[in-house]
Amino acid sequence: MPDDELTTPVPTRWVGPIRVSGDVDGEQEVPLATFESPLWPSVGRGARVSRLVPGGVSVTVTGERMTRSTLFVAASGAAAAAAARRIEEQQDELAGIVAAGSAYARLVGVTTEVVGNQLFVRFALTTGDAAGHNMVTLAAEALMTHLLAQHPELAYGSISGNYCSDKKATAVNGILGRGRSVVADIVLPREVLEGQLRTTAERLNELNVRKNLVGSTIAGALRSANAHYANMLLAFYLATGQDAANIVEGSQGITYTEVRGDDLYFSCSLPSLIVGTVGNGKHLPAIETALTRLGCREDRAPCENARRLACLIAATVLCGELSLLAAQTNPGELMRSHLVMERAQGVSR
Amino acid sequence: MPDDELTTPVPTRWVGPIRVSGDVDGEQEVPLATFESPLWPSVGRGARVSRLVPGGVSVTVTGERMTRSTLFVAASGAAAAAAARRIEEQQDELAGIVAAGSAYARLVGVTTEVVGNQLFVRFALTTGDAAGHNMVTLAAEALMTHLLAQHPELAYGSISGNYCSDKKATAVNGILGRGRSVVADIVLPREVLEGQLRTTAERLNELNVRKNLVGSTIAGALRSANAHYANMLLAFYLATGQDAANIVEGSQGITYTEVRGDDLYFSCSLPSLIVGTVGNGKHLPAIETALTRLGCREDRAPCENARRLACLIAATVLCGELSLLAAQTNPGELMRSHLVMERAQGVSR
Amino acid sequence: MPDDELTTPVPTRWVGPIRVSGDVDGEQEVPLATFESPLWPSVGRGARVSRLVPGGVSVTVTGERMTRSTLFVAASGAAAAAAARRIEEQQDELAGIVAAGSAYARLVGVTTEVVGNQLFVRFALTTGDAAGHNMVTLAAEALMTHLLAQHPELAYGSISGNYCSDKKATAVNGILGRGRSVVADIVLPREVLEGQLRTTAERLNELNVRKNLVGSTIAGALRSANAHYANMLLAFYLATGQDAANIVEGSQGITYTEVRGDDLYFSCSLPSLIVGTVGNGKHLPAIETALTRLGCREDRAPCENARRLACLIAATVLCGELSLLAAQTNPGELMRSHLVMERAQGVSR
Amino acid sequence: MPDDELTTPVPTRWVGPIRVSGDVDGEQEVPLATFESPLWPSVGRGARVSRLVPGGVSVTVTGERMTRSTLFVAASGAAAAAAARRIEEQQDELAGIVAAGSAYARLVGVTTEVVGNQLFVRFALTTGDAAGHNMVTLAAEALMTHLLAQHPELAYGSISGNYCSDKKATAVNGILGRGRSVVADIVLPREVLEGQLRTTAERLNELNVRKNLVGSTIAGALRSANAHYANMLLAFYLATGQDAANIVEGSQGITYTEVRGDDLYFSCSLPSLIVGTVGNGKHLPAIETALTRLGCREDRAPCENARRLACLIAATVLCGELSLLAAQTNPGELMRSHLVMERAQGVSR
Repeated sequence: MPDDELTTPVPTRWVGPIRVSGDVDGEQEVPLATFESPLWPSVGRGARVSRLVPGGVSVTVTGERMTRSTLFVAASGAAAAAAARRIEEQQDELAGIVAAGSAYARLVGVTTEVVGNQLFVRFALTTGDAAGHNMVTLAAEALMTHLLAQHPELAYGSISGNYCSDKKATAVNGILGRGRSVVADIVLPREVLEGQLRTTAERLNELNVRKNLVGSTIAGALRSANAHYANMLLAFYLATGQDAANIVEGSQGITYTEVRGDDLYFSCSLPSLIVGTVGNGKHLPAIETALTRLGCREDRAPCENARRLACLIAATVLCGELSLLAAQTNPGELMRSHLVMERAQGVSR
Repeated sequence: MPDDELTTPVPTRWVGPIRVSGDVDGEQEVPLATFESPLWPSVGRGARVSRLVPGGVSVTVTGERMTRSTLFVAASGAAAAAAARRIEEQQDELAGIVAAGSAYARLVGVTTEVVGNQLFVRFALTTGDAAGHNMVTLAAEALMTHLLAQHPELAYGSISGNYCSDKKATAVNGILGRGRSVVADIVLPREVLEGQLRTTAERLNELNVRKNLVGSTIAGALRSANAHYANMLLAFYLATGQDAANIVEGSQGITYTEVRGDDLYFSCSLPSLIVGTVGNGKHLPAIETALTRLGCREDRAPCENARRLACLIAATVLCGELSLLAAQTNPGELMRSHLVMERAQGVSR
Repeated sequence: MPDDELTTPVPTRWVGPIRVSGDVDGEQEVPLATFESPLWPSVGRGARVSRLVPGGVSVTVTGERMTRSTLFVAASGAAAAAAARRIEEQQDELAGIVAAGSAYARLVGVTTEVVGNQLFVRFALTTGDAAGHNMVTLAAEALMTHLLAQHPELAYGSISGNYCSDKKATAVNGILGRGRSVVADIVLPREVLEGQLRTTAERLNELNVRKNLVGSTIAGALRSANAHYANMLLAFYLATGQDAANIVEGSQGITYTEVRGDDLYFSCSLPSLIVGTVGNGKHLPAIETALTRLGCREDRAPCENARRLACLIAATVLCGELSLLAAQTNPGELMRSHLVMERAQGVSR
Repeated sequence: MPDDELTTPVPTRWVGPIRVSGDVDGEQEVPLATFESPLWPSVGRGARVSRLVPGGVSVTVTGERMTRSTLFVAASGAAAAAAARRIEEQQDELAGIVAAGSAYARLVGVTTEVVGNQLFVRFALTTGDAAGHNMVTLAAEALMTHLLAQHPELAYGSISGNYCSDKKATAVNGILGRGRSVVADIVLPREVLEGQLRTTAERLNELNVRKNLVGSTIAGALRSANAHYANMLLAFYLATGQDAANIVEGSQGITYTEVRGDDLYFSCSLPSLIVGTVGNGKHLPAIETALTRLGCREDRAPCENARRLACLIAATVLCGELSLLAAQTNPGELMRSHLVMERAQGVSR
């Protein structure tokens, strides 16, 4: 095969459909590309559960933005701080520069931090249906050129100062926002918990506190309390042509549960889903097919296709998380069964 | 296409060769599967640099182990602590159970932590040439069954208590070890820095301190100080059939540089490379071909193929990291060039 | 007043007694030195609760050690890694050096980490009844001198490489151990919860999950899930002449609760209590008086006085934590009452 | 002594004067209350250095605010998110409520985060010359009462949801701001480095990178890269009647250095100095005396006394940090000298 046609084929299945409501409504099958085949039945079990509950998984977008942090260097902390104040006041002017350079990019926030004589300026933009990596870099270059011309007391430090923060385990993305933030939740009645998941509200809630909240705490987790978001994110990202290295920050989310009588409230909050329906990789035939089948290539207002995608990903994460946690509440089942079966329920992750 | 043959083809290129020495010697091309095509020339530039330096990139394995943390529940902190002490003293007995159940798995460490009445027990194993996800889960099940029978004061909490910690942004993996740990380093003379990378030792070192060390600190990074390890890890993991969700912890590494006269000492330390040459996904034809071409399917002592793979990955990470950092030292170049060119140098990440 | 007799008098009260059992048994009043006077009735309320429960607060020591991390520099990662392996194998020899230099210090662990050409070596020692800051530094100097003489390939980096880690918010102390680790817990029956704390098991447990576990997670907390350990630690440390800057790591502990029928299981796990009954400040009259009244100047085996002190501190933390959390479950009370009253219940923290 | 007059006398010295410029100008002695007497000569050495440099330590305030995060609970993520949006839009109305209830408190920011059905609302206020713990709690109570009346879909969760975050090791305070943020820096010429500190720009810079930046990273530090800020903060806080438990977040700052020819640029950035000149403990005679001697009880505009205090603290931190780091660059000195001398230079911390 000529080298420029070489690909690595990643086994892919469409799972579900998942029933969703809220910012996206209906039933939708979802694609998962992974070498870890037990993920398919595991998410599939969660999807089946979603179809047994009115409204299924409720999904809500709580934020969206993409960021890039530039680094300027001054002679002193005093000079860096003075520049920081002026730049924060210039936000309207800077927004004009961004809008002039792009049909989609819009500046929605400027955050500064001074460390000694260094000035970090973090720009936040909305980027339409794109994940926005390129858009924010282009905008940051234009803004940096403009600011360096205006502020002779500042020198170039770096186009990216790691305060962005791209594909790293940090706290800033969840706190200041990066990517699309989605909350997915569902209320599961006792009969579904027992019949489909062989568990109860109490046992699942107890496991979530002990494992995802306390266990993550002693592991030294950073803004992360879940069992395996990364697995679902990777598989969905690959199947839809995303820059899947963004599962690093994407995996930093929280599973929160509550016992409500015999029912269980089960939620997954995902602050940093960095996904798009246009951009790098999105024009490959397999990816176009997948996005189209997901209903994410419709003629909608900018952002709307990407929002739909983010919501479907969040619902998928919930299905996989629910399935694995339920399996881990069952020691007997666990101890009896052999590897293949366990893996089919996602236990072995 | 029948659903069970569906795949997502990820564009793949072989880049290099990279020259390596130390725990692996020679020149080796490496495969990168990614939707982000600018990664190829970026790593390629680093690989070219490696071939201009005697010995190229030096690679050293500093540790290897896979882990699973089980969770037991007692009535009280006193009971949990007493059980913890006994379990730590039982390590030889527990090692026997693990060895009896597997030709490859060997117990090399037991760490306990008590939180209230909960007892987390983290088992560390060597797992031959496998990444070891399944092996440690099977071993943990056997150990848990054994310990629950022996310790009636303990009840089942969870087969995984998140103190493992799998595919999450935590501190424990770097500190206690998870996966193969590799240090890759190189000394770059001035002519290579200027001729190939259009930079100097001083500028690259300065950028590394400001961006990777200080910038990561204000971002609230956790045991992570680098520009974009996640990009190289994802692409290499996909091309070799790894469970690429492990880039979450894999990306938590440190780039450290020193100016040595006109030369630059440049290093990447990667504590948590969770990779194997056997196991899930490794028998797919494209993966077998890739592993064979990498020299990682040879008839060697257990561990040796996986160690080679980990070393080649670390060297690849170094090439990509060096290339991007060098590009970011060049504001002029950055401001002048247009998107395509920038992306070709990996700037846009 | 001559400058060398100048003191800052910190208002101090003895609160309690607290009833304790386990590694310390009996009833004991505890001293709290603080400018924040509402702390006294807040801890006092918890102490009263402890006396209404058989056994009161159960306390268990789960570990004790003090640490210092030295930093060596080699030419390369390969050289640093080779030295690391040899040093780990030398542990018996190094233990001999430590024992020869001190009547109390004993080497109990050596941990290494390589970052590029740098080698961090973390020494763990038991230090009798002292907190051990000076003892570990003296030992580290002797060890470093010895190792530098033996290993010509290593150069001096720093007597402290920040991997210790002293008085900083890090993950390493909880994971590898630093200071005395204590778990304190109590089971509270409904009548005590309602009568003394005006709350219920359900409400207090719910608050703990939402605030201490989930709220801390989104704050980007590091191995920390509690309401206000730092307040009790500071006051107790000051009243007993401790180096109170160690509340930084001391405050990184976990409050964990469980509903047991109508009862509440309530626990505080404190991994890093860096305290001693001898050493700096312990011979000041007010401090001697306090330590004597606490029963921590008895003629016991080395470690035993300091262990007693650590247990009493943990019990005090539990009393204050319980009191504040109970108050925060009461919105009505909160909204009605005025500042003085609220502060008297510790609400205003 | 009657119990209500009991105090713990903490040994105190006035050190310096330190020369400062920028947001505070002149020379000022500073008080340090500590059981660790080697701190005095250590800070004193740094102060002497400050007087040898024109302008001494430059200090710049980059932010000031106090925070409290309330927790509301809704039925679902969708309801919580809808409430979050409305509350963010209500900021002017909420600011009116705060201003009506206090002569000093002013609402300057509202940040929300949704986790499942929970809504965390973090209020940021300026609080005049007070540290502001009580002021923000009172304001938060008024705001919560108002919002609960307005939003029947919300229930009370907690007056403090740990997203504030008070006296805990978290990332949020540095990123969103809590307390007064100050940058202190100085440029040290070679003769001062050699004559006073027996070191060089190169050695001190190298140590800072290796120990404070890299060493802190592997320790799993969170937004913290310094040697011992906590020591100076504790001593200064105690001597001026601060709530010294706030050294937990106060200690999370960054030491950054640069070699400039033969000179050294040395800086300490302290984002979270939670200090006041009025409030709890400030009317004790010893504290009034100390604040008056510091020039922090003048008749100035609100905030100005507290700003002065924060600046003096930052300068003091720089003096102590510089002194210890310089000592740690000297292995020969370290190895030769005996304990007393080492401690006098602050080496033993």
